[in-house]
Amino acid sequence: MNEETRAQQRERYKEELKQSKSAIKKGLVIVNTGNGKGKTTAALGQVFRAWGQGMRVCILQFIKASTANWGEEKAAHRLGIEVHPLGSGFTWLSKDIEKDKRLAREGWELCKQKILSGAYDLIVLDEMTYVLTYGWISWEEVREIFDRRPEGLHLIVTGRDAPPELIDYADTVSEVREVKHHYLKVKSQKGIEF
Amino acid sequence: MNEETRAQQRERYKEELKQSKSAIKKGLVIVNTGNGKGKTTAALGQVFRAWGQGMRVCILQFIKASTANWGEEKAAHRLGIEVHPLGSGFTWLSKDIEKDKRLAREGWELCKQKILSGAYDLIVLDEMTYVLTYGWISWEEVREIFDRRPEGLHLIVTGRDAPPELIDYADTVSEVREVKHHYLKVKSQKGIEF
Repeated sequence: MNEETRAQQRERYKEELKQSKSAIKKGLVIVNTGNGKGKTTAALGQVFRAWGQGMRVCILQFIKASTANWGEEKAAHRLGIEVHPLGSGFTWLSKDIEKDKRLAREGWELCKQKILSGAYDLIVLDEMTYVLTYGWISWEEVREIFDRRPEGLHLIVTGRDAPPELIDYADTVSEVREVKHHYLKVKSQKGIEF
Repeated sequence: MNEETRAQQRERYKEELKQSKSAIKKGLVIVNTGNGKGKTTAALGQVFRAWGQGMRVCILQFIKASTANWGEEKAAHRLGIEVHPLGSGFTWLSKDIEKDKRLAREGWELCKQKILSGAYDLIVLDEMTYVLTYGWISWEEVREIFDRRPEGLHLIVTGRDAPPELIDYADTVSEVREVKHHYLKVKSQKGIEF
């Protein structure tokens, strides 16, 4: 975290502005990865912003099972944003790998429908990196669907250990690095962790 | 980004769960810093989640000037969430440093009122690190107000170059690192950047 001077900030902003004038508009593939805690949270912030702009949003969650207790699910329902929990809870604690694998495949079928439907401007594929890492869905299959998506559709993929092919394919990749975290000292709290 | 095995994931989750049982509940200070693009976005995700849980939220933005064009501002207004833009546009492009400094000081007065009011469960101090880095507001002054805040009030501070004293004081610090970003190739787009 080297400190940026005021002059450097000014230069950076001018440069970004100049470059953006010769740029194109397109549907983006955004990846939030890394071992920090803000990956899904950042995607939800994007949802919030997009919803504010009147965009049509859909959230597909690979790992989380449905529970009325998640703050994001409550918020999405209140806003009329679609949320589809595709998982069976915290997958990596499951005793039944075959069942998790089947759920992930079924979940991906729903993702494909949603991505190709033309009904959305932004789709969040939350915690999707895990199913790629486990090899339950191949990158080739995912790439083919991403390539065929309607023009202008933005996709956000979250999760640890994003595969290099996905990073290479994406327009924007952010890595959230955990500098420190309170979970060892403080309980999970409503509105913060869930 | 070393790959975590399924067994490691399981162990990590069990350890977190075990530790959290002996943990306390408290209002957190969360810092989103680093040179990546998702710092404010992650704070907005936290707002989304907290709002879903029925929490009382307030957003104070140090750098941004008010514009009806920001997605987050539109969304917040539609949800009845308070947003206070305290800045005069992109501060580091301003020609009048004294004016920016005065605005920052006035903004901080409003922050103090809001923090001490008891009227909120979560307050976002967006881009606040800059005014600390510039020395326009001292860390000692900020710390005193943070210390005196009502029990249970969560604070989120965002911005590049979080000062070491703030990092030390915070419960949770995430650094967003930019792996790659589309702004050099693609225009700023509604619902994504604003």
